[in-house]
Amino acid sequence: MIASIDGSRLIARLGQLGDTGRDEAGRLCRVAASDADKAGRDLLRDWLQGAGLRVEIDRIGNIYGIWKPEGASGAPVVMGSHIDTVIDAGIYDGCYGVLSGLAVIEAMQAAGLRPARPIAVVAFTNEEGVRYAPDMMGSLVAAGGLATDEALATVGTDGTTLGAELARIGYAGPHEPGFLRPHAYVELHVEQGPVLEAEGMALGAVENLQGISWQQVTIGGNANHAGTTPMAMRQDAGVAAARVIVFLDQLARSTPGAVATVGTIAFRPNAINVIPSQAIFTVDLRNPDEQRLSSQEAALDSFLSDLRDEGFSVSSERLARFQPVTFAPEILAAIEASAAERQLACRRMTSGAGHDAQMIARVAPSAMIFVPSKGGISHNPAEFSADGDLVAGANVLLDVIGKLSQ
Amino acid sequence: MIASIDGSRLIARLGQLGDTGRDEAGRLCRVAASDADKAGRDLLRDWLQGAGLRVEIDRIGNIYGIWKPEGASGAPVVMGSHIDTVIDAGIYDGCYGVLSGLAVIEAMQAAGLRPARPIAVVAFTNEEGVRYAPDMMGSLVAAGGLATDEALATVGTDGTTLGAELARIGYAGPHEPGFLRPHAYVELHVEQGPVLEAEGMALGAVENLQGISWQQVTIGGNANHAGTTPMAMRQDAGVAAARVIVFLDQLARSTPGAVATVGTIAFRPNAINVIPSQAIFTVDLRNPDEQRLSSQEAALDSFLSDLRDEGFSVSSERLARFQPVTFAPEILAAIEASAAERQLACRRMTSGAGHDAQMIARVAPSAMIFVPSKGGISHNPAEFSADGDLVAGANVLLDVIGKLSQ
Repeated sequence: MIASIDGSRLIARLGQLGDTGRDEAGRLCRVAASDADKAGRDLLRDWLQGAGLRVEIDRIGNIYGIWKPEGASGAPVVMGSHIDTVIDAGIYDGCYGVLSGLAVIEAMQAAGLRPARPIAVVAFTNEEGVRYAPDMMGSLVAAGGLATDEALATVGTDGTTLGAELARIGYAGPHEPGFLRPHAYVELHVEQGPVLEAEGMALGAVENLQGISWQQVTIGGNANHAGTTPMAMRQDAGVAAARVIVFLDQLARSTPGAVATVGTIAFRPNAINVIPSQAIFTVDLRNPDEQRLSSQEAALDSFLSDLRDEGFSVSSERLARFQPVTFAPEILAAIEASAAERQLACRRMTSGAGHDAQMIARVAPSAMIFVPSKGGISHNPAEFSADGDLVAGANVLLDVIGKLSQ
Repeated sequence: MIASIDGSRLIARLGQLGDTGRDEAGRLCRVAASDADKAGRDLLRDWLQGAGLRVEIDRIGNIYGIWKPEGASGAPVVMGSHIDTVIDAGIYDGCYGVLSGLAVIEAMQAAGLRPARPIAVVAFTNEEGVRYAPDMMGSLVAAGGLATDEALATVGTDGTTLGAELARIGYAGPHEPGFLRPHAYVELHVEQGPVLEAEGMALGAVENLQGISWQQVTIGGNANHAGTTPMAMRQDAGVAAARVIVFLDQLARSTPGAVATVGTIAFRPNAINVIPSQAIFTVDLRNPDEQRLSSQEAALDSFLSDLRDEGFSVSSERLARFQPVTFAPEILAAIEASAAERQLACRRMTSGAGHDAQMIARVAPSAMIFVPSKGGISHNPAEFSADGDLVAGANVLLDVIGKLSQ
C-alpha cells in the first residue's frame, strides 16, 4: 500500500463523464466517433493534460495519456478501457477503467513516486461495436489483429465510415496503432454480472475470459394443419428447436464453466393453427476452456445431426468464434496480494463478456480486475456499482501498477 | 347403389367455381361478402336454379337450394358446406361439398327417384372467418348459437360490417336463419389432412370432431448478460418456454387422439447475447374426447404452476375453447354400408379442423364424409384431391342421402 487514489475526484469525474453525450431524451449515447463521443473524448483529454500527461492519439483514434517521470525507461505499464457506450448506457462500463487509470497516475504523482517504467492510460476506440462492427476494434487494431486501413474503412449502421467520422471529430491521430507496446496491461472494470454481489466479494481477479461461439441455426420441417395432422405424421420445426434449447441448457449446466443462451427465435409461418415449417434461432455458447467450448459445439452438432436423421433439414451458420483468453498469473498474484493487504474479499473469476484486455493479451501480459455490479445489470441506465467498491478497486489497481512499474 | 352422379360435370363445375373470384395476381380470394364472393354466389344460384331448385336465402346470407318432389314431405335432408374461401385458397375446401350436394339432387332427378322427404343443398356464409370473426358463422347462426343481428353487426378486418356488405352484394335474404331445420345433415369435404392418403383409404366416415383449446402463454424471467450470468443464477424465459413445448409434444404423443401445436413464439428482448426476459407463445390443443382434452389442459396448467414455483411469472389467456362434437351413428353406418357396396376402402376418423357440420349437429343428426387430400395440404393453391376420389365421395353421399330421404 504505497499511496491512495483520490476517491471523491474519481466518483465526481465518473458522474461528469456520465453526463456528457446524452441525447434529447436524456439517454447516454456516446456511440463511437459520434459528436457525443467527441464531447467525452474532449473532456478526457482535458483531464489527461491537466495531470501533465503527454496525450498521443493513433490512427484508429485510441487516446493515450503517458506519464514518463524522470528516470523512467523501457516499455510502459498501461491501464485502460474505453469511453464509448451503447445506446442508453450506464455510466460505469469502460469509463471506470479509464478514469481509474488516470487516478492511479495522479496518486503516484501526488505521493512523489518515481516508477522505473513509464505509465500510461488508454481509452480504446469503439469497444462497444454498436455503430461500427466488430466490437473491441481499437484494441484489436492496436494488437495487430485487424489492419488499420481496413478498420477505418468500416461502414457503420448509419452509412458513415469510421475513418471519415474520426477525422471529422478530430480524433484521427498520426500514430500507427501499436506504436506503444505495453510492458503489461491491466484493465479495471465493473463485473457486468451478478457473481461478486451474490457472494459478497469486493473484487474479482479475472484469470481468464470465456471463449465465445455464436451460431444461427435454421431447422426446416413441414407446415401442416395443427388439427388434422396426427402427432406421428408431424415434422414440427418448433418442437425440434425447443428440444435443442432444452438440450443446450442441460448441457451447459453439466459442463464446468459453460453457459449457453438462445436469445432469439422466430417460427414460420408463425400462425396459431399451423405447425411451424421453420424455426430460426441463435446459439451463444461460452466457456473459459477451449476444449470444453469445442465439446459444447460438437455436442450441438451431434444433436442437430440426429434431427437430420429424423428428417428435418438443419443448417447452421457461424456468426462469431473467439478462443478463450488466459490472463497473466504474475498480475493475478499482484491483484490478490493487494486485496489481501487491503483486507478486501477477492475471488478468481472468469470474464463472461468481451473486453479490450483480451486483445492486448495477444501482445503483452494482461489481466483484469472486477468490482461488483448491482444485480449484474449492465448496458442499461440502471447499471450501478457502489462508490466504496469503485474506490477500493482503483486502489488495488494502484498497488498492482506500482508493483509492475518498479 | 341407386344411381350415379355426373362426375365430369361435378369436376367441371369445381374448376369453373375455382376460376371465379380471383384477384389481379390470380389468387383465389372469395372472402365472405366480398365482390368475389358475390360472383361465386351468383354462379351457384344459377346452377341451383338450372336444376329446378327453389332458392331461398336467409338473413345471414346462407343460400339454400330446395328440391321438393311430388309427394315429399316433412323436414328436408340437407347436404352442404360453404363457398367462401381464405386468401389464396385452393378450389376444393367447401365448394366440393356444396357442388356434390347439387350433383346428388341432379342424379336423383335424372334417375326418376321420388324421395319421401325434401332434399336441400346449402352454402353457409363465412365459414372461413377470414374477414369476419368467428368462423363457421352462417351455420352457427342457423343453429341458434349466435343471434342474427349480432352476427350481422360484426365489423370485419377491413372496417366493413357484415350486414351492410351482404345487403350490398344482394345476399341479405328475408328468411330468419334456422327457418329450414334439417331432418339430417351430411357434409362431404376434403380431408385437409394426410391420413387417408397415407393409409391408402378412399373415404373417411367422420365420427367426431375434435374439441379445441387455444391459449396464449406468457412466461417472464430475467434479462441478463448471456456471458456473465452463470447457469445457476438464470431465469431464462426462453428455456422455460422450450420446456413447455417439449412437454406438450410428449404429452400429446402419449394421449389417445390428442394433438398439440405451438405455432407462434416471440422472445424479448430477442437479442443474441441477452437471456430472454419474456417468452410469449400460443398453444393449440385438440382432442375428440372432452375428458382427455380437459386433462391435457390440466397437465399444461400443472406444468406452468411448477414454473411459477421455480420463480417465473406465468400468465395464460384463453383464446378459444370448443367442446368435441360426436356425429350421428346411423349416418356413419349408412356411409360405411355405401362404401362397402361400392368397394371403397373406408375408415372411421376424427375431424381435426372445424366445419359447418359441427354447428348443425346441435340441431339435427349430422355427419361428415372425407375424401383424401394430397399431402394433407389445404388453405393453399396446392390443395388437391384426385378426380376419381372426388366422384367416389359424391356417389357415397348420393347413397347416404338416398337412404336418409326414404
